[in-house]
Amino acid sequence: MQADTQRNWCSRRQDKARRISQLESLATGKEIPTARIVEALELLLEPGDKVVLEGNNQKQADFLSRSLGQVDNSKIHDLHMVMPSVGRPEHLDLFENGVARKLDFSFSGPQSLRIGQLMEDGLLEVGAIHTYIELYARLFVDLTPRMALLAGFKADRAGNIYTGPSTEDTPALVEAAAFKDGIVIFQVNEIVDDVSDLPRVDIPASWVDFIVLADKPFYIEPLFTRDPRLITDVHVLMAMMALKGIYARHQVQSLNHGIGFNTAAIELLLPTYGEELGLKGKICRNWTLNPHPTLIPAIESGWVESVHCFGTELGMEDYVAARPDIFFTGSDGSLRSNRAFCQLAGQYAVDMFIGATLQVDGDGNSSTVTRGRVAGFGGAPNMGHDPGGRRHASPAWLDMRTDTNPLTKGKKLVVQMVETFQDANKPTLVAELDAIAMASDYQMPLAPVMIYASDVTHVLTEEGIAYLYLAKSPEERRAMVAAVAGITAIGLARDPVETARLRAEGLVAYPEDLGIKRSEATRDKLAAKSISELQAWSGGLYQPPAKFRSW
Amino acid sequence: MQADTQRNWCSRRQDKARRISQLESLATGKEIPTARIVEALELLLEPGDKVVLEGNNQKQADFLSRSLGQVDNSKIHDLHMVMPSVGRPEHLDLFENGVARKLDFSFSGPQSLRIGQLMEDGLLEVGAIHTYIELYARLFVDLTPRMALLAGFKADRAGNIYTGPSTEDTPALVEAAAFKDGIVIFQVNEIVDDVSDLPRVDIPASWVDFIVLADKPFYIEPLFTRDPRLITDVHVLMAMMALKGIYARHQVQSLNHGIGFNTAAIELLLPTYGEELGLKGKICRNWTLNPHPTLIPAIESGWVESVHCFGTELGMEDYVAARPDIFFTGSDGSLRSNRAFCQLAGQYAVDMFIGATLQVDGDGNSSTVTRGRVAGFGGAPNMGHDPGGRRHASPAWLDMRTDTNPLTKGKKLVVQMVETFQDANKPTLVAELDAIAMASDYQMPLAPVMIYASDVTHVLTEEGIAYLYLAKSPEERRAMVAAVAGITAIGLARDPVETARLRAEGLVAYPEDLGIKRSEATRDKLAAKSISELQAWSGGLYQPPAKFRSW
Repeated sequence: MQADTQRNWCSRRQDKARRISQLESLATGKEIPTARIVEALELLLEPGDKVVLEGNNQKQADFLSRSLGQVDNSKIHDLHMVMPSVGRPEHLDLFENGVARKLDFSFSGPQSLRIGQLMEDGLLEVGAIHTYIELYARLFVDLTPRMALLAGFKADRAGNIYTGPSTEDTPALVEAAAFKDGIVIFQVNEIVDDVSDLPRVDIPASWVDFIVLADKPFYIEPLFTRDPRLITDVHVLMAMMALKGIYARHQVQSLNHGIGFNTAAIELLLPTYGEELGLKGKICRNWTLNPHPTLIPAIESGWVESVHCFGTELGMEDYVAARPDIFFTGSDGSLRSNRAFCQLAGQYAVDMFIGATLQVDGDGNSSTVTRGRVAGFGGAPNMGHDPGGRRHASPAWLDMRTDTNPLTKGKKLVVQMVETFQDANKPTLVAELDAIAMASDYQMPLAPVMIYASDVTHVLTEEGIAYLYLAKSPEERRAMVAAVAGITAIGLARDPVETARLRAEGLVAYPEDLGIKRSEATRDKLAAKSISELQAWSGGLYQPPAKFRSW
Repeated sequence: MQADTQRNWCSRRQDKARRISQLESLATGKEIPTARIVEALELLLEPGDKVVLEGNNQKQADFLSRSLGQVDNSKIHDLHMVMPSVGRPEHLDLFENGVARKLDFSFSGPQSLRIGQLMEDGLLEVGAIHTYIELYARLFVDLTPRMALLAGFKADRAGNIYTGPSTEDTPALVEAAAFKDGIVIFQVNEIVDDVSDLPRVDIPASWVDFIVLADKPFYIEPLFTRDPRLITDVHVLMAMMALKGIYARHQVQSLNHGIGFNTAAIELLLPTYGEELGLKGKICRNWTLNPHPTLIPAIESGWVESVHCFGTELGMEDYVAARPDIFFTGSDGSLRSNRAFCQLAGQYAVDMFIGATLQVDGDGNSSTVTRGRVAGFGGAPNMGHDPGGRRHASPAWLDMRTDTNPLTKGKKLVVQMVETFQDANKPTLVAELDAIAMASDYQMPLAPVMIYASDVTHVLTEEGIAYLYLAKSPEERRAMVAAVAGITAIGLARDPVETARLRAEGLVAYPEDLGIKRSEATRDKLAAKSISELQAWSGGLYQPPAKFRSW
């Protein structure tokens, strides 16, 4: 027992100062010339460094990721990359060329197959697959970065950053680096002289070490646009069941919708079927989700009190800016998104999460994992669980209690809304999740389950609703899932007598039990049937990206 | 179904502009004269407004809360206060004089008895009692404020804010107001001319509407200082059991400690007993907690790799500033605390929470609630639960699994560390929590339970450790709790044969089962036995507040 009086307690700070001093003749103040970014990265980095790279769900620090791919791999190698989202080919080029070696991430989307291949080839070692919010959390514990490579819209020469509407993950990613002597570098689309030339400041200059003008504006992906043309009558039927059998029944005030045509159909039924049911002003008032274009008719017809956003959505900028009573916007008028706070809001402050998935097993566990694809979790496991730390009550939350014991908490509504088949040969309801085979293929410590059965309160298919929170035993729960599993193997194995009992006791509801006629469930009920009708609802404020302009 | 073309979508923004314009002749730029703050509040507020007031766990916007108490209650009344912590008498004066009516909060500490009285008198209506993080979350959903009253250390005239080491809740509280057209007012201890005169910027000026020089520096409370003199031999015994029977056994790398003499004893045993056990470098490397003075010897002897802090602790400023390799600090050298991120880190990124409580029932539910006191939850329910959204593994987390099913997740270790009696007449282990009577006294929708039995993995008393995560049934779980309940009623009712079986099977461990001799558990094992020895360990950097200077 003894104090280590020889120890240097400021090694990170000194190391940072030493590295930064090497850019003395290269940078002008905080500004790195665009053409010299590769050289700068080679001077600032060392092998094995932990590096946060802002690949977000939507926004990409793509100039910096491309530049990192060009560093001399004899100088800079074996980096440990920490990234919310691995979405771009160059992210994985880093591993192929040896610049990086280890990866901690949350979501990989289009790169999921290649991650699996690089793992098999021994070129990429996965630290862990996280949800967004636990990845941010680890930045403050055991994944504190030496460098953070981030994207902003504009900077002034002092280093104040304007992120524009896609603030997204930036505040969470920058904080751990800025306050633990990491080096913070922002690529921006434009550099202005003075802070007064910035529309607003999202990240203060004193957290930023370097800025660099990108060769072109950062890439941002429109991930949350669903074309109403692709919504089917089946989606409409399911959406009607959701509204009557779940939203109205439990008085859902605040909620998060996943992306998908099912939930887009719900959004587009609020001004039509929702009004028929007399629900306006009674449900769906406070939202945590990205600015979905399919939410425009509900907003315009007065259903929506507030929307807090994880990120932005391309084309929605002007619409959002013109609706500050609904959206969170800055003094400049544009959206302030914030994934960390929106994830918190979606976990702790809303009544319900409803979303789709690719597979649901007989117990109600679900996953979007397909064999060979190391896809990651994104935010779904956080939205799709009952947060054990919640202590405030709401009517919907209390409605999930099945006894009157004062020690029984309410529950968040977690609804899995799926068609029984993905396509003719691919059932959604399956005996075993592919995630289990994945776990053994890649020696994962546990199967990559998206949402656990113990958290799911409802399963909704085109067949009906299973009110799983009412199940009195695991066996009854399985019978309830089977009752809505249609002609999948799980569904075909159900006992008709048991199914009749479940319906009679209100544990399962088919459309007719809810007073919904299948013949009435048609696309005619949608408040908008195309992107151009969404644009019309917005009074021309919504400007759909080119790929959605099919008229 | 129809767009509301008459609706004003910018009503909050216009309302804010209108209110602010009324201060045109009163304020100079963003600066409100100290002597005119009451007048300014009367001009800016309207009856019924939702107002965030920065009463935090430690830091208090006390000049603003005192000033709010002086507004004319015929003009300003029925405010809806949203406060993380209700810690000061003037917070409740607001309700007594009618300025405020409704309260949403997290923690009330010393004011808990008076809140109960005001509720009974019909002067105060509680919206809900939250944990810190769910209160922040609701700011973005259905508790969005019209005004936020906050505290900073310094401001420049443009409105950039330097919080100093006690950033705490400020970023979470300011964001919801700043980005939803709320009015943001900071009291500061000092106003400087230019941003270059600020040590660093914690909150950018474009989020801030007004600053006001406080009449005196904001109050901050040293809540996390535990004088080692008050640590007893029993605390030492329990700490030894914790280290050997929990920390070492499960290889706990990252953790959060509650406040209390039990956990302070653990901190002070790391450099002594921990080293004897050969655990240095193997456990307790990454911490999420306030800068506890009792952690100094462990830091100085090389046990600790990192500490991320919820808030600061008075007297620890210079010590923290001199240890930037360990703590998160800004470019100015001082601590950057952040309660929102630290709560995330403590939930999602650490292996274990260990803390004390006032009551534990036979199932393992715990609460600090005492009848008549509406005390709130603070952060304990968030630290003290298994976060269902976690997906990454760690050795300790995986060690909580009791089968090899790939669908079985690990668990966060949640340890309740209590002496079986608070004092001679007050057992800690009780048949029923007082929280249940409270719920019925105050018509609460559910009992104010701090930590639910389903989340508790271990109960540790001076009698031994109950490894509750291993319980195969609720009955066995109750027997395990009883086995460590000593001579409380619950403990006396235990079956000696069953207890012997539980010990033999390793479900319960007494000190002798762990190879710990009670005679060795003495204060001599503590690395520091007094505040002055802590100061000596710190090389004089720790400057204890006057009330702890007893030498």
